Amino acid sequence: MSERNSMMNKFGSGVAGSNLPPLDEDISLKKDSDKDDFWLHRRQPSTYIETLREAVGIRSISTWPDARNECLRMVQWTAAKLEELGFETELRKMGDQDMDGKSVPIPPIILATRGNDQYKKTLLIYGHLDVQPARQSDGWYTEPFCLTEDDGKLYGRGASDDKGPLLGWFHAIEAYIKTSIRIPINIKFVLETMLESGSEGLDDLMMNQKNQFLADVDLVAISDNYWLSRNQPCITYGLRGLCYFFVEVECGSKDLHSGVFGGAVREALPDLIWILDQLVDVDGNILIPGILDNVCPVLPEEEALYDGIDFDLEEFKADSGVKALRYPEDKRATLMARWRFPCLTLHGIQGAFGDPGAKTVIPRKVIGKFSIRLVPNQRPERIDKLVRDFLVQKWEERGSPNKFQCYMADDGLKPWCANPFHPSYKAARQATAWAYGRIPDMTREGGTLERLLLLQEITGKNVLLIPMGSCDDAAHTKNEKINMENYITGTKLFSAFIHEVGKLERSEL
Amino acid sequence: MSERNSMMNKFGSGVAGSNLPPLDEDISLKKDSDKDDFWLHRRQPSTYIETLREAVGIRSISTWPDARNECLRMVQWTAAKLEELGFETELRKMGDQDMDGKSVPIPPIILATRGNDQYKKTLLIYGHLDVQPARQSDGWYTEPFCLTEDDGKLYGRGASDDKGPLLGWFHAIEAYIKTSIRIPINIKFVLETMLESGSEGLDDLMMNQKNQFLADVDLVAISDNYWLSRNQPCITYGLRGLCYFFVEVECGSKDLHSGVFGGAVREALPDLIWILDQLVDVDGNILIPGILDNVCPVLPEEEALYDGIDFDLEEFKADSGVKALRYPEDKRATLMARWRFPCLTLHGIQGAFGDPGAKTVIPRKVIGKFSIRLVPNQRPERIDKLVRDFLVQKWEERGSPNKFQCYMADDGLKPWCANPFHPSYKAARQATAWAYGRIPDMTREGGTLERLLLLQEITGKNVLLIPMGSCDDAAHTKNEKINMENYITGTKLFSAFIHEVGKLERSEL
Repeated sequence: MSERNSMMNKFGSGVAGSNLPPLDEDISLKKDSDKDDFWLHRRQPSTYIETLREAVGIRSISTWPDARNECLRMVQWTAAKLEELGFETELRKMGDQDMDGKSVPIPPIILATRGNDQYKKTLLIYGHLDVQPARQSDGWYTEPFCLTEDDGKLYGRGASDDKGPLLGWFHAIEAYIKTSIRIPINIKFVLETMLESGSEGLDDLMMNQKNQFLADVDLVAISDNYWLSRNQPCITYGLRGLCYFFVEVECGSKDLHSGVFGGAVREALPDLIWILDQLVDVDGNILIPGILDNVCPVLPEEEALYDGIDFDLEEFKADSGVKALRYPEDKRATLMARWRFPCLTLHGIQGAFGDPGAKTVIPRKVIGKFSIRLVPNQRPERIDKLVRDFLVQKWEERGSPNKFQCYMADDGLKPWCANPFHPSYKAARQATAWAYGRIPDMTREGGTLERLLLLQEITGKNVLLIPMGSCDDAAHTKNEKINMENYITGTKLFSAFIHEVGKLERSEL
Repeated sequence: MSERNSMMNKFGSGVAGSNLPPLDEDISLKKDSDKDDFWLHRRQPSTYIETLREAVGIRSISTWPDARNECLRMVQWTAAKLEELGFETELRKMGDQDMDGKSVPIPPIILATRGNDQYKKTLLIYGHLDVQPARQSDGWYTEPFCLTEDDGKLYGRGASDDKGPLLGWFHAIEAYIKTSIRIPINIKFVLETMLESGSEGLDDLMMNQKNQFLADVDLVAISDNYWLSRNQPCITYGLRGLCYFFVEVECGSKDLHSGVFGGAVREALPDLIWILDQLVDVDGNILIPGILDNVCPVLPEEEALYDGIDFDLEEFKADSGVKALRYPEDKRATLMARWRFPCLTLHGIQGAFGDPGAKTVIPRKVIGKFSIRLVPNQRPERIDKLVRDFLVQKWEERGSPNKFQCYMADDGLKPWCANPFHPSYKAARQATAWAYGRIPDMTREGGTLERLLLLQEITGKNVLLIPMGSCDDAAHTKNEKINMENYITGTKLFSAFIHEVGKLERSEL
């Protein structure tokens, strides 16, 4: 208890309810003797690396039907590790699924619990054990499933997404145990092995566990994203939502030869091209009336958040490989365009001729695909209506005899934005400051993390994204890696976060 | 000689040079006793069908590397048949080609000659022995390589494209031999087995044979197209040309995730969509200035040609399966739009997301594909320049920082239009009238036949398209067939055509 009180004094009271003070005024860059003692007893980095080598060596690619036994092996390996750490684990069977006409088992979801003290807060950590496909022939310099150390980097599939960060949490807990320091919170894990394959079954299980496994959760942490830059740690408090649209135009019952029919029939593709051209202008501005109506205005306090962020426009441009940025001279505008304003991207057209070479086809039915990234307070159902009303009206203007329809995929995904001034975020920033010796940036991201929204809604609690990896980890492409520094210091950060969460009042969460 | 003179009297002199008289005033629907005698001795249809069964049974699919031995077998089977008919045949070796990383032999081209009489005209017949791929699982009711007779139709891959028509020519020649009637002309064949695979090697061989094998050719006939309707025979005197264009827009060096980068970068696909939308209006009119400048005006005589053509708009619409025609009430406008006016078709986009489902990609480089069908006197090089100048100017208007280029595939294909009043066409019409008891329609087609232009240019002689099959033969799709009536009466037509060509003066050709 005294620990908590002293912590409150240090942070100053009323931070959560404050009128948005500068974020970093009360974060301590000084070492905390408890935590320092703790790290004097830490295991050698080499043992951490060996554990990661074992995990990376298991080819848990959920999108390959033939690799499901490896996914299962990964689940068993992980459950054994958790049991060694004193967790009670439960492997929830998920049944089978049909893949390419073959029935394959869905790997079980691990529900693990360590500690059941009602006076302690309970931290839930969510992660995934499956990885993206990888073959050395894709252009890897090393064998993807053989962890390879080179120049301070650990190369291997899953090293950063998401095996490395998960092992970071395991090692943080292990450090408490090995140093006989009591763990100040209860910890739970939800670990799936199907994230890269649509998280089959996870939603239902979580919904069913609302009043059981998830009932006593006070805070959720996810380490499945990346720093904004290469060298500056960050804590992430927002994600954009997503509405994905399909626009279909159909001119006939079969594809036709343009030599035989060209000139005589009313073709579908020019109609689709025309209607897709109504959506954005050359500068990327969305042309759908009312689309920005519910976007939160930028407040001065928010602007200030952007100014200190470690983000280099030229480096961003070079890394992305693009010819031009929308705001070539403006770091803040570029970050806001990625994080806190909606955007519309045209993705492509299904049913038209998309292969290399020349084919003289008149496609019978073409489906344009585009998506809009949502930000607070845009709601998918309202965006859906705005877009469809607009396109239906445009279609009437077009006056084509072809068949048109437009619809949104699923229900869309809401944007997510936490309060970066919330005590749980302060705890994460304090832990980062201690581990890295510098205050992390508070960032948002432009993408989505569907399970984050799910866990937030089911638990009703705060969710934090605490990344371990760096922006150049190449999570979904060839030569995925995690920096040794991120892997080791990230582990320190997680143990410090456990310490900091232990100091929070439950009423603040 | 007397034969020739009497023929000239019957046709009336000076037809070729006449001022476009109505086409059909002097075609005789009466039987010609020579040809009647000849057909009294014809073989039974069943033997013709058996020969087609053998030919269809050989799976000469040139686009499948593993079927090249079947292509070779088809060449050998055909050469043997020609030799039985008294042809001297030569199999020209064409070397190997690389397919999917595998070296496969190109089937030899058959050059065959029957007769060497300098006082006779020489007819060259061009055809192909390879067929489109087919598997029963594609939706065939019957095994595609087992000729199946049903309700007056012969189903099988190649039955109409192009094995049936070629056998028609063989059987016509055989009938002369069996009835001991002298063949009034020299006949040559050029038969390739690579048409469906780009006619590899044919151009070079033909060019090399200009002053050898092709030197004495007086007329070229090709039976590799189809009637305009189901029941009315036709002779085809025109084809459109083709310019196929690629428009590339590139915004970066790699595909990007729209969540991470959407809103911050200048995307390529909206630029491409915009520029493709500049090409045609909603009614299918081409928006490129000057594009129609060299299109021949429609003369009254030409208009008259269209009025009598057997073509039912509703049937055409139903067969094509389209929602709407450009000229729903106008048969002549519809035919002209297919045959004698240019059109522009958008085919698709390479590099964008074209698969089913949803993918949130920002494509790094997208290539739009469209083509323009050309008619006399449009020239590919001028169309190329017009299109590129137009698109470059539009791109400047767009003002995008992305990279743009536009180019035409190869050199384009010129349109082809023969004089339908030429004596060789009159001969074909006379032969059709005799075989079918009705005067054929004079048609054009909207597609291209690259080898036709080649043979016309190399020989400098008239080329005729004399189709055997009907419009619903499904040459490139499932359930290809030829009607028994077309196969048998078409064979009669070919023998009558040989007879009629025999009557022409060389000076007319």
